[in-house]
Amino acid sequence: MTAERVEEVTVELGPRAYQVLVGSSLLHLTGPRLASLGLRGRCGLVTSARVGALYRAPVEASLRAAGFEPTVVELPDGEEHKTLATLERLYDGLLAAGLERRSPLVAVGGGVVGDVAGFAAATLLRGIPILQVPTTLLAQVDASVGGKTGVNHRTGKNLLGAFHQPCGVIADVDVLRSLPRREYVAGLAEVVKYGLIGDPGLFALIERNLDALLRLESDLLVRVVAACVRQKAAVVAADEREETGARAVLNFGHTVGHGVEAVTEYRRYLHGEAVAIGMVAACRVSQALGLCAPGLVARVQGVLGRAGLPAELPAELRGPQLVAAMRTDKKVAGGKIRFVAIEDIGRTRLVELASSEIVNQL
Amino acid sequence: MTAERVEEVTVELGPRAYQVLVGSSLLHLTGPRLASLGLRGRCGLVTSARVGALYRAPVEASLRAAGFEPTVVELPDGEEHKTLATLERLYDGLLAAGLERRSPLVAVGGGVVGDVAGFAAATLLRGIPILQVPTTLLAQVDASVGGKTGVNHRTGKNLLGAFHQPCGVIADVDVLRSLPRREYVAGLAEVVKYGLIGDPGLFALIERNLDALLRLESDLLVRVVAACVRQKAAVVAADEREETGARAVLNFGHTVGHGVEAVTEYRRYLHGEAVAIGMVAACRVSQALGLCAPGLVARVQGVLGRAGLPAELPAELRGPQLVAAMRTDKKVAGGKIRFVAIEDIGRTRLVELASSEIVNQL
Repeated sequence: MTAERVEEVTVELGPRAYQVLVGSSLLHLTGPRLASLGLRGRCGLVTSARVGALYRAPVEASLRAAGFEPTVVELPDGEEHKTLATLERLYDGLLAAGLERRSPLVAVGGGVVGDVAGFAAATLLRGIPILQVPTTLLAQVDASVGGKTGVNHRTGKNLLGAFHQPCGVIADVDVLRSLPRREYVAGLAEVVKYGLIGDPGLFALIERNLDALLRLESDLLVRVVAACVRQKAAVVAADEREETGARAVLNFGHTVGHGVEAVTEYRRYLHGEAVAIGMVAACRVSQALGLCAPGLVARVQGVLGRAGLPAELPAELRGPQLVAAMRTDKKVAGGKIRFVAIEDIGRTRLVELASSEIVNQL
Repeated sequence: MTAERVEEVTVELGPRAYQVLVGSSLLHLTGPRLASLGLRGRCGLVTSARVGALYRAPVEASLRAAGFEPTVVELPDGEEHKTLATLERLYDGLLAAGLERRSPLVAVGGGVVGDVAGFAAATLLRGIPILQVPTTLLAQVDASVGGKTGVNHRTGKNLLGAFHQPCGVIADVDVLRSLPRREYVAGLAEVVKYGLIGDPGLFALIERNLDALLRLESDLLVRVVAACVRQKAAVVAADEREETGARAVLNFGHTVGHGVEAVTEYRRYLHGEAVAIGMVAACRVSQALGLCAPGLVARVQGVLGRAGLPAELPAELRGPQLVAAMRTDKKVAGGKIRFVAIEDIGRTRLVELASSEIVNQL
């Protein structure tokens, strides 16, 4: 048995500040949390078919017990449904439920549910509250915190969306046990990322306790997820809308990662797996630029490899297609890529590079 | 000949502050204005077929002269095209143009163009800058300032949208000369509204100079439009997202007005005409509540009638349908309508009423 543990992280955004709860057995807090924010009455519960089968009932019960009248809308599972068409059906379902401006949404699911429901919350009646209840590791440490919402366009991922902060986040690590192993491990790549970009203690904790993490030990998971959320919260508070460059640090490993996902048409790698490859690539580029010590690449590859993540860019993917894919990413300004390089574990530096300069170093 | 006049109003929103220019012959300033904000490169020029035929050329020339590379997207004319489908086509056109996060949009048109382009700007790449160049009186004194964007849903108007402040507004009163007479006059209803809700001097100015206003005398128009914008700017600065109730004052005449538009299926009245009816209704309700002196109704009807606006709710529209229509409006909280009542010219008061309480007084 592990000791029970709940951690509360505040995302300091003045009038838009909110709390992230990280712990176990937290789903029953959904209703009380919303009620404590002064919300009441009708609400929307957005989930997917797969996640809904597992967690819809306890969340719905919690909402009803707190006096809410939830209308459930289930989105189809899968990134291919993260589209305007799905958003439109969500609009239809929520408007038919008679939601008002202070009627909250609750999003129970992974990144797709959170992003699409977040976009709906950002744009229904010009903005309604949303409580995120992320059910994947990736969503718990990344997508659910920070207010990025969106859907894909046929010409690129997340090209349509808005910044819209949630009114709260409930990250229950227990639900991670129902994740497919591969998806859980892919989420660990983003956890490793937080260690690399800003928390040497977290990186060391992961290195020392990787086996326990792979066994989903509850108290360790709470500690690790909370550490990630704390860092994400600090970055978001410093640069809510990705304007000053501070938030760009979160894109560590993502320039090449997004490129790898694009050239493999989002079929070969899960997002976290592509980010793992991208982080190793970012270490290599940093080394080639003389920014970090040579030992870093091996250390990063070591922990990713032990977790079962890919830690090398396959030779067949190094080519002009990857260059082109990186160039169409959103993090482009004046044709140059804002690349997050690394100086040491916990310390990054933003550099402007042409995409070819990156690929040549891989 | 009238003297040339340019007025500049700042919408004080801290990091989102922007200037509204009101004057004549201002279209050539489009490019320089955007350049002065540090923007450059590709941009989108969004207009409608009708407005584009008249004003696209000078705006495009101004943009090119300032070094921009505009891609023009023309939306179909008419409120019936203020839909997600139109928004989607706009997304397609703008993404095909290769816009980046700092690429601005320029919206040249009336409320439909401004609202749809504004929604696109709010949600492309999670938000890009937009310069509003309103070409109707209604858009100049209302829609172009304040960051409300949106499209209609089949269950109601403007139910989908976001708050997204423009980076600037250029209101050239010369372009109002190309408006159909009826549309110009409908816009005057909103001008009268500004007098009623917060500017007795403006109301008196309109009463004294209505004939000159109906002749579109340039210097008077600049003065009147600037007075409206100044008030709108103050209200928006006090309550950017319609949260404190301060912004609700702008809805004076709109509860009944929206209801009238809905029950006549948006065919019988232009928006301003419905608002004229709604303002008289609001005066009557206020009188019935003992909030204002009896003479107010006649004085308001007088100026609206002289302008050629409808100033009475037709008997056949007073019924349960109107009650139901008002209840589905966005300004509903807990089933009660936040109704803007009037105490005297320039002074309003927010009251919570059931929709039937309103209709019974008409």
